[in-house]
Amino acid sequence: MGGGVDVPRSSSYPMVEVPAAVDIVLSQAERVLEGEHVELEEVADRVLFEDVLAQGDVPPFRASIKDGYAVVQAEGPGIYDVSGEVTAGRQSHTAVGNGKVVYVTTGAPVPDEADAVVQVEWTKPAEEPGKIEIITGAPKVGHDIRPVGTDVKKGQTILSAREEVHMAEVGLLATCNVRNVPVYKNARVAVLSTGDELVEAGGELGFGKIVDSNRPMLLAAVGSVGGIPVDLGIATDEEQAVTSAFMEAMLKSDVLITSGGVSMGNKDFIKPLLARYGTVHFGRVMMKPGKPLTFATIEPNAFSEGVPSSRKLVIGLPGNPVSCFVCFHLVVSPLIRKLSGFRSPHNPRVMVRTKMELKLDPERPEYHRALVSWDVGQRALTAVTTGIQASSRLLSARSANGLLVLPRADRTLPVGEEVEAILIGQIL
Amino acid sequence: MGGGVDVPRSSSYPMVEVPAAVDIVLSQAERVLEGEHVELEEVADRVLFEDVLAQGDVPPFRASIKDGYAVVQAEGPGIYDVSGEVTAGRQSHTAVGNGKVVYVTTGAPVPDEADAVVQVEWTKPAEEPGKIEIITGAPKVGHDIRPVGTDVKKGQTILSAREEVHMAEVGLLATCNVRNVPVYKNARVAVLSTGDELVEAGGELGFGKIVDSNRPMLLAAVGSVGGIPVDLGIATDEEQAVTSAFMEAMLKSDVLITSGGVSMGNKDFIKPLLARYGTVHFGRVMMKPGKPLTFATIEPNAFSEGVPSSRKLVIGLPGNPVSCFVCFHLVVSPLIRKLSGFRSPHNPRVMVRTKMELKLDPERPEYHRALVSWDVGQRALTAVTTGIQASSRLLSARSANGLLVLPRADRTLPVGEEVEAILIGQIL
Ligand SMILES: [Mg+2]
Ligand SMILES: [Mg+2]
Repeated sequence: MGGGVDVPRSSSYPMVEVPAAVDIVLSQAERVLEGEHVELEEVADRVLFEDVLAQGDVPPFRASIKDGYAVVQAEGPGIYDVSGEVTAGRQSHTAVGNGKVVYVTTGAPVPDEADAVVQVEWTKPAEEPGKIEIITGAPKVGHDIRPVGTDVKKGQTILSAREEVHMAEVGLLATCNVRNVPVYKNARVAVLSTGDELVEAGGELGFGKIVDSNRPMLLAAVGSVGGIPVDLGIATDEEQAVTSAFMEAMLKSDVLITSGGVSMGNKDFIKPLLARYGTVHFGRVMMKPGKPLTFATIEPNAFSEGVPSSRKLVIGLPGNPVSCFVCFHLVVSPLIRKLSGFRSPHNPRVMVRTKMELKLDPERPEYHRALVSWDVGQRALTAVTTGIQASSRLLSARSANGLLVLPRADRTLPVGEEVEAILIGQIL
Repeated sequence: MGGGVDVPRSSSYPMVEVPAAVDIVLSQAERVLEGEHVELEEVADRVLFEDVLAQGDVPPFRASIKDGYAVVQAEGPGIYDVSGEVTAGRQSHTAVGNGKVVYVTTGAPVPDEADAVVQVEWTKPAEEPGKIEIITGAPKVGHDIRPVGTDVKKGQTILSAREEVHMAEVGLLATCNVRNVPVYKNARVAVLSTGDELVEAGGELGFGKIVDSNRPMLLAAVGSVGGIPVDLGIATDEEQAVTSAFMEAMLKSDVLITSGGVSMGNKDFIKPLLARYGTVHFGRVMMKPGKPLTFATIEPNAFSEGVPSSRKLVIGLPGNPVSCFVCFHLVVSPLIRKLSGFRSPHNPRVMVRTKMELKLDPERPEYHRALVSWDVGQRALTAVTTGIQASSRLLSARSANGLLVLPRADRTLPVGEEVEAILIGQIL
């Protein structure tokens, strides 16, 4: 035994295809999600937990659309006495009709006896003090008045459960006088790096050591899709260290993401420990990069009865940074977004025209990092590669806003071919 | 005078086209931007202030690409003595060559005397204890070894000034052992609502009052494009209230965004006060919605010599919430992004096929809120309208991820026409 002879030589995990892997992960996320209330100032980028109904009509009164004069429309053009004014938010008027009008500003309540507004541009001061001349009359009753409830009717569903809240929706919530907003709780996502070779960024590198880039990268990524990042640090390649980190994750998170420790080396403890304490749903995925990608669930009392906990989802990412990057976008991001209530947790997919030849991989579908942009000349979305796609070479992920889904095949894709791209950032 | 007779009847500001307006705003943002250093954990979504050079080679040592055996390639297949092991991060080996190999794990330093790695799958334990059989030898010298500096060379520019930092770039910074990252300071953006009719969300609505939806909406929007939102509250329609708010903005922000008070009503003080204390660069824009959009600059000592200040950029948005929404995306968002260092501050533009008829406006180009998605059948980006486009109707901005740039014309655009869309959110 030992001495590097009787080491693992093949994986016992069957290879699953990427779409199946994503389905398995998302199906395990089908638990009852929790809601909470947050203040209007905190609600951006969250997902609504309940429908939001309008508490009142918008506008709540007949509002003038223009700066102008509230009139009785039938009285038409002519000389009028300006009997008073109503500015937005300040009520005061005298009388409208029988030769009288009232000056109104945009958004001001139109006096009850008026049935139209004539904008100032259609009028001029008359010779006589205190009077104006209406040159062009209001063309019809109701002109330049927004009736009560024009924009929103009281009781109307203004936003629906599962809807994402961005700028416009924040405005709509305010419009409907909602301050405490029911939203899905965001998932707490713990991030753990494993490996004796890893040191924190900013320190000295001893021989054989490298900086842990996966954890800062994944913590940033978790935040970018609305998860709450929980930093579990670096665990050494020892059973006890990895087990302790798992237990910490049970206490502090809903999801645990590990990186490293999923190969077949004799120091790769992630899969064996996940199998010991939980259920490994898959341990190999037909993809390049990312083949050793692993997914497991751990039940609440796996470690000890006394620890308050709930069911945890664990994703074991490979140690190579590019594998981490690709697997994050394909699997982790949809999981976090699903747990945070997003109706459609997936990244958008579009077809793009390639701007260079691409050598396909004969064994595995490849998720090729690319820059996707709108080509004005071609009037189409196009993609260029980010360069050499080695799984250790994080430079291949630099600026990438798309993953080209390249089929497994023993040939080269010519320039101008249409391929599917998963958008992982805004189009250039 | 007064009594609603001698009120403003026409704007003295010339009408400018939207592209000219955007150019004017961005040209005023051409000041020296400041940099600062932030920790790796805080750097996501920021823009680099300086080039970042690799402090060392990646990998810093010859690293094994596989779990396997470090060999002298020329010795080929056969029975070998496993003389020791080197696992990632732990140095210990005995000897390679002359019938000896060393077990290495992925990422481990390959012993100096070895010139290739044979993956474990190509080997099996031999009959004799402590020995393995190499069934398939390494095809060539260097096989499955990453040479020093393969991924990154010491001194290489790994990221450039003006580059955005997202997930991959965080990983690259860590890889290069950078903890304190030089980035552009984010712009502080003060948001002020004006209007006697406005009340805070969550309160009682008296007659003639409406909830201030613009400010929560704009504060959220500022944050979403990387600005630091500063809430200046609601100013009443009085010169003194608006002036005080301007002075507060001089102290607390780089940019001031106001909403309301830019029409021609006798309570619209924004333009006159901006003209009094600063320079109004434009006060009317040829667009629908958003015509009264105003842009001004205020010099450092406009209000008092004693107040520490710098030059401020002020954008006066119309009070209608949809005008605010559209003007934010067209003008404010590029401004904030430019101030925060973004090389390309504009939203992406693509061509989309319309899925419904669109009535064009004969007087002004319209920025029509729409849902842009990839249509699998048409293999093209397509757009549907969000519905009635009244400028008070914020529901027309709900879920919108695109603004269709509709030309000014007295006709109806048929279904299936190609129009330009400004993407303001991820494609569906
Ligand atoms: Mg490892
Ligand atoms: Mg007003």
